[in-house]
Amino acid sequence: MSDLPRSVRITEEGPREGFQIATQPVPTADKIALIDALSATGAPRIQVASFVSPKRVPGWADADAVVAGFTPRARVSYTALWFNPQGLVRALGFKDRLSLYGSITVAASEAFSLKNLNRDRTGQIAAQRETIAAHQSAGVAVTRASVQAAFGCNFAGEVTPAEAIAAVADAMALAEETGCAIERISLADTMGWANPLLIERVVGAVRARWPAQKVSLHLHDTRGLGIPNAFAALRMGVDEFDAAVGGAGGCPFAGHPGAPGNIATEELVLLCEEMGIATGIDIDAMIAAGHLAERVLGRTLPSALLRGGSLTAFRAKARAA
Amino acid sequence: MSDLPRSVRITEEGPREGFQIATQPVPTADKIALIDALSATGAPRIQVASFVSPKRVPGWADADAVVAGFTPRARVSYTALWFNPQGLVRALGFKDRLSLYGSITVAASEAFSLKNLNRDRTGQIAAQRETIAAHQSAGVAVTRASVQAAFGCNFAGEVTPAEAIAAVADAMALAEETGCAIERISLADTMGWANPLLIERVVGAVRARWPAQKVSLHLHDTRGLGIPNAFAALRMGVDEFDAAVGGAGGCPFAGHPGAPGNIATEELVLLCEEMGIATGIDIDAMIAAGHLAERVLGRTLPSALLRGGSLTAFRAKARAA
Repeated sequence: MSDLPRSVRITEEGPREGFQIATQPVPTADKIALIDALSATGAPRIQVASFVSPKRVPGWADADAVVAGFTPRARVSYTALWFNPQGLVRALGFKDRLSLYGSITVAASEAFSLKNLNRDRTGQIAAQRETIAAHQSAGVAVTRASVQAAFGCNFAGEVTPAEAIAAVADAMALAEETGCAIERISLADTMGWANPLLIERVVGAVRARWPAQKVSLHLHDTRGLGIPNAFAALRMGVDEFDAAVGGAGGCPFAGHPGAPGNIATEELVLLCEEMGIATGIDIDAMIAAGHLAERVLGRTLPSALLRGGSLTAFRAKARAA
Repeated sequence: MSDLPRSVRITEEGPREGFQIATQPVPTADKIALIDALSATGAPRIQVASFVSPKRVPGWADADAVVAGFTPRARVSYTALWFNPQGLVRALGFKDRLSLYGSITVAASEAFSLKNLNRDRTGQIAAQRETIAAHQSAGVAVTRASVQAAFGCNFAGEVTPAEAIAAVADAMALAEETGCAIERISLADTMGWANPLLIERVVGAVRARWPAQKVSLHLHDTRGLGIPNAFAALRMGVDEFDAAVGGAGGCPFAGHPGAPGNIATEELVLLCEEMGIATGIDIDAMIAAGHLAERVLGRTLPSALLRGGSLTAFRAKARAA
């Protein structure tokens, strides 16, 4: 009945996701405080910044200062996001603090590729030859194939499993051509179109075709189906997920301002830990970090668990009664 | 891989659940307007009021006026909630507008029984002999066995599957003793303690022991696991759920003010319809009713889908592009 993993690795993306759509400027010190709080939760991996053009994403104009300023902890791996050689150069400046790896990024929808990556899919493949070469020159292995809008698109509508597979195949062909050993295929439901059956179909098809790679999911909870989608994936044994504390985040190029963001890390932790799947994360510390994120961002985040609270105190009270 | 039902029957409980915990008085006319809006969504069944003591639940002091005032639609079944002969008498006054059935209600936790039903479990069983007799005298069949706190309790902590089964067994024994033909066993996660694995264990055990009865679930989304829990149940073929528009509601006796309420009807509809399971409900009409519920209740409801919006407009725009 179940193929649940014994443990999962969650990449906490609250800082990168949350600040990229912040509706008011967030002081650099507050960003650093949130990262430091997240470092204390037991999260094994935290994406701390986005090295993108400040013209495109003003909320990350201070990425260098943030990465320079947080306090790294042992046993936590810190990552950042970038899409081009300029971003790589900035990241290389912090190779003592960041785990660097390269990604081949494609969108399963032509329309979203144009909006988010600023090029059509053919152009994006061509542009990445240059990016991959820059990584290889710098000695940074390109190990991830990332597919955005893998389950649907606000601009193009439905994305069929065949289209998602075709996008993965484009990325994998480019990896083969350029001699990159891809370890992980990351599938993103960038705009919250997935449902559990679609997750099963796409993940199943990707695994059948690329059995040597791990599948990692980046899910958004735009419409309340993010955690059920994660559960469907857990049922298939998927054990790598991105999530964002409080459910912060959202894509600035999705044409959907105000929509809920990523799946909330603390809800994913609750789902896993209640079913006996280890995450390494202290749920109450993550909830506290979620409340800090709300103060820093100046808004209520969508996570239900931030409102309902964990079961820890109720359990302790019941035991004491 | 799947035992998904082809259709599900959702009982919309937003009015009954939402107004029982309203933090400010809601005018009777506004309650009626919400019920009338819900009647237009295609929801097959709406629980419109609670015939409980106004001392215990002040938000339902006007239950009689609400039930007298809404406009019934053909093909919608309207229900109400009560727990004792006095409540039944009030409901009988509206037998032309309400579908009346009796329930045997027990709590799987002694502590919650005392808080919510005002009696311990033994006392509750005894009290229900009188309630059942009142139903039988009035010609109202007692067809439902309801177990509250079937998955955990804010006061008692964990509720094991064995304890949940014991509570169902108590209700079923009372039904047999009193000659009631139980058609449905309703399991309530009153305080949001369930996880998908626990749902599978308890639902599986209940079905194995009582194969002739349908299982119906009443789930709360206190901590963000309500919709994943519904998905786990759908996977087992469960096809009857309660839900509340916007995720309104919550138990006034759960010791947990401010916690998110029931699973949001519109999120359950999205989950079902996106997987090809018919609900009969127009999701955009239900989302509009959710926004009306927010205006009537004077607060933001927890549903992510009320913020993210349905896929309908995105699909139409993509097709037109």
